[in-house]
Amino acid sequence: MREMEEMILSEGEVLPGGILKVGSFLNQQIDTGFLRDMGREIARLYRESGVTKVLTIEASGIAIAAAAAMELGVPMLFAKKHKTSNVDGSVYSTEVHSFTHGTDYTVVVSRDYLLPTDRVLLVDDFLANGAALRGLIALTRQAGAVLVGAAIAIEKAFQHGGDTLRDEGVRVESLAVIESMENGMIAFRR
Amino acid sequence: MREMEEMILSEGEVLPGGILKVGSFLNQQIDTGFLRDMGREIARLYRESGVTKVLTIEASGIAIAAAAAMELGVPMLFAKKHKTSNVDGSVYSTEVHSFTHGTDYTVVVSRDYLLPTDRVLLVDDFLANGAALRGLIALTRQAGAVLVGAAIAIEKAFQHGGDTLRDEGVRVESLAVIESMENGMIAFRR
Repeated sequence: MREMEEMILSEGEVLPGGILKVGSFLNQQIDTGFLRDMGREIARLYRESGVTKVLTIEASGIAIAAAAAMELGVPMLFAKKHKTSNVDGSVYSTEVHSFTHGTDYTVVVSRDYLLPTDRVLLVDDFLANGAALRGLIALTRQAGAVLVGAAIAIEKAFQHGGDTLRDEGVRVESLAVIESMENGMIAFRR
Repeated sequence: MREMEEMILSEGEVLPGGILKVGSFLNQQIDTGFLRDMGREIARLYRESGVTKVLTIEASGIAIAAAAAMELGVPMLFAKKHKTSNVDGSVYSTEVHSFTHGTDYTVVVSRDYLLPTDRVLLVDDFLANGAALRGLIALTRQAGAVLVGAAIAIEKAFQHGGDTLRDEGVRVESLAVIESMENGMIAFRR
């Protein structure tokens, strides 16, 4: 999506440690005109896939997931992060390791809302090593739902999570794929 | 908003302790057609107020705030919850006491995104005692921005946060105002 690449180049900031700061338009502050465009592009990519539910993880994926679900005309569902693995039987849950924070957390979603009959599209703002996305895939599989694929705003290909999932047969569509960010220079996949 | 009252009556569940469960359409799972309607109604209420930014708090307010901001054609911004009050000078921050969880947390928003020139509309899913909303008001005042008012999906009037703020001169618009939930019976304000 050319508009995403342009936004990253004009608004994004590369910080030490391979961090891309896009708080001015994608998380924390969200450009809502652009948000609508992202939703439309994700809906266009998955229009023929029979999606019945969009699943994301709190917090920064929620706006993009809502915009995509709105355009697809399906409900949006977000998994919650828990500090403890102490959850009851009313939820599906899985452990996720955060490489960013060096901690583990539990991701849960209610069994009432993720159904065996669902065809699930996963949406998130970032895809790096793929840990969060694998958590959502695990929840989808626990529910016995069909995984249609994933739609990501920004993929950091140099952390390999997206390509590993593609190799495993998961459809992963990213609105921008960053191949490298060395010395503050952002290079996109062509 | 009649549609909100109807959704609460048909989908909501009253749990012990004055908790209203609306996870099937408002938080956790979100009915996106209804989300669009909520955004339009909030935009209608504040169309003439010159809003430049919609501010909410993660996580469950994000979708509604995004929908409202989309309709108003302005950016949406969400404040983040921190466990510690150890924040740096790049943010505005304030303490919020959670009556639900019996804990305090710090709410922060970047100085880069909340500006003295902003006219701020606060949006959240629930208003009970008003602690979270007062946190957002404090951030808005720290920034020197103008507080236009607040738009809330569901207000629990029996916890008095909304009326206290109205008495202080804050414009608070709620899409549904619940006067009482005794014995599982929901009564709305007329």
